[in-house]
Amino acid sequence: MTPNDLVEIELIKRLKYRYLRCLDQKLWDELTEVLTPDAVASYSGGKYTYEGREAIVEFLRNAMGADTFHSSHRCHHPEIDLIDASHATGIWAMDDVVIMTDWDLTIRGAAFYEDEYVKTDGRWWIASTGYRRTYEELQPRSNVEGLRLTASWWSTAGRSELDV
Amino acid sequence: MTPNDLVEIELIKRLKYRYLRCLDQKLWDELTEVLTPDAVASYSGGKYTYEGREAIVEFLRNAMGADTFHSSHRCHHPEIDLIDASHATGIWAMDDVVIMTDWDLTIRGAAFYEDEYVKTDGRWWIASTGYRRTYEELQPRSNVEGLRLTASWWSTAGRSELDV
Amino acid sequence: MTPNDLVEIELIKRLKYRYLRCLDQKLWDELTEVLTPDAVASYSGGKYTYEGREAIVEFLRNAMGADTFHSSHRCHHPEIDLIDASHATGIWAMDDVVIMTDWDLTIRGAAFYEDEYVKTDGRWWIASTGYRRTYEELQPRSNVEGLRLTASWWSTAGRSELDV
Repeated sequence: MTPNDLVEIELIKRLKYRYLRCLDQKLWDELTEVLTPDAVASYSGGKYTYEGREAIVEFLRNAMGADTFHSSHRCHHPEIDLIDASHATGIWAMDDVVIMTDWDLTIRGAAFYEDEYVKTDGRWWIASTGYRRTYEELQPRSNVEGLRLTASWWSTAGRSELDV
Repeated sequence: MTPNDLVEIELIKRLKYRYLRCLDQKLWDELTEVLTPDAVASYSGGKYTYEGREAIVEFLRNAMGADTFHSSHRCHHPEIDLIDASHATGIWAMDDVVIMTDWDLTIRGAAFYEDEYVKTDGRWWIASTGYRRTYEELQPRSNVEGLRLTASWWSTAGRSELDV
Repeated sequence: MTPNDLVEIELIKRLKYRYLRCLDQKLWDELTEVLTPDAVASYSGGKYTYEGREAIVEFLRNAMGADTFHSSHRCHHPEIDLIDASHATGIWAMDDVVIMTDWDLTIRGAAFYEDEYVKTDGRWWIASTGYRRTYEELQPRSNVEGLRLTASWWSTAGRSELDV
């Protein structure tokens, strides 16, 4: 590993961070731009598998597009390997929390991602992405006495309704 | 991006990590040292806005200083842009958990930070920081049957009372 | 800090990420390989202290080896200091979630790690590791109405049983 390799690795990490930010901020057009046209996604141990970035983003938009869907997808522990000047692989640990107020559900989980990246036109792209879950759990929200959503990117402009 | 840029970026990340560690360990004097004298903070979508590092740290100390206040603020996905040799911006994803045993509350949330950094006197400082929440939720603790705090930095010296 | 220092720091981060991945994926033989033969571990404010990598891995395997034990250990905010060409220290923030379906328990916590690393035989090793908790809490699972595990690395091959 050389300092110049580190530059490529940092650019790949940033690609992943942009993907994840666009996911949780529902920036679907910008999210499309981090994927190759023929990108493949295989989420949840292969349960949700899509080919082509249009199909992937269509799935994500349908599943996560509602303003009542609050998600926090966080990736950690990048193990990025540069295969050659235009190919790389990455393993990431992931945690996610999803709060769906219209479905009265919270979903929490953990997973490991395995990705492939390619460099064309002077920048990196996600060519393949997918994760397998360590665990996932679901919990109805209205059963929890006193549980209350006190801020939302969409309904409170990200501002808390609590007073400290 | 060059290898030398990466050095600056790593130093900025470390600045943020020090800020966050000082926050959760209640090291208020050390926390003050990462902020410029005229730093601006705008937490929770602007709800809590302070100018000057004394005002910022005073707010944090009052809100989070009690030994019954246990917090875990974690920042992820750094997108650091170097503007010039002494200015940079950063976007971060944040997760936080706060357990207030005296108020019988747990607060969990997610947010995105937007920061500005300046380099003077040979090192980086936080000049501006603020976040907007994706979500925040509050839950009374005593309603949850069997929920028990089993370790605390302050009351058990960070040692678990559980036996595995 | 130089670009070459960053290479060493990245290698140390990867060592830690490999340790954490092996922990949550129960890859005990591979986990052994990141520790020096005489490594020391001091988990949970010193409550669980072991000397020698065999003793450490034996403890981890016994505590976490069951397929009904689902864990997510995530480390953040690395503050890695290179002491000399073959010694380094690291501070990390940690979050963990453990779901034990056979014991009907969820444990959630936060901590700060302090590690020591050594470089011998051309690579880095963990020589000393330990954490002190900010907090830890325990919750019985069957009390939570509707709480359901919907995916497991071991029992569903990491695939969700939910339909979105």
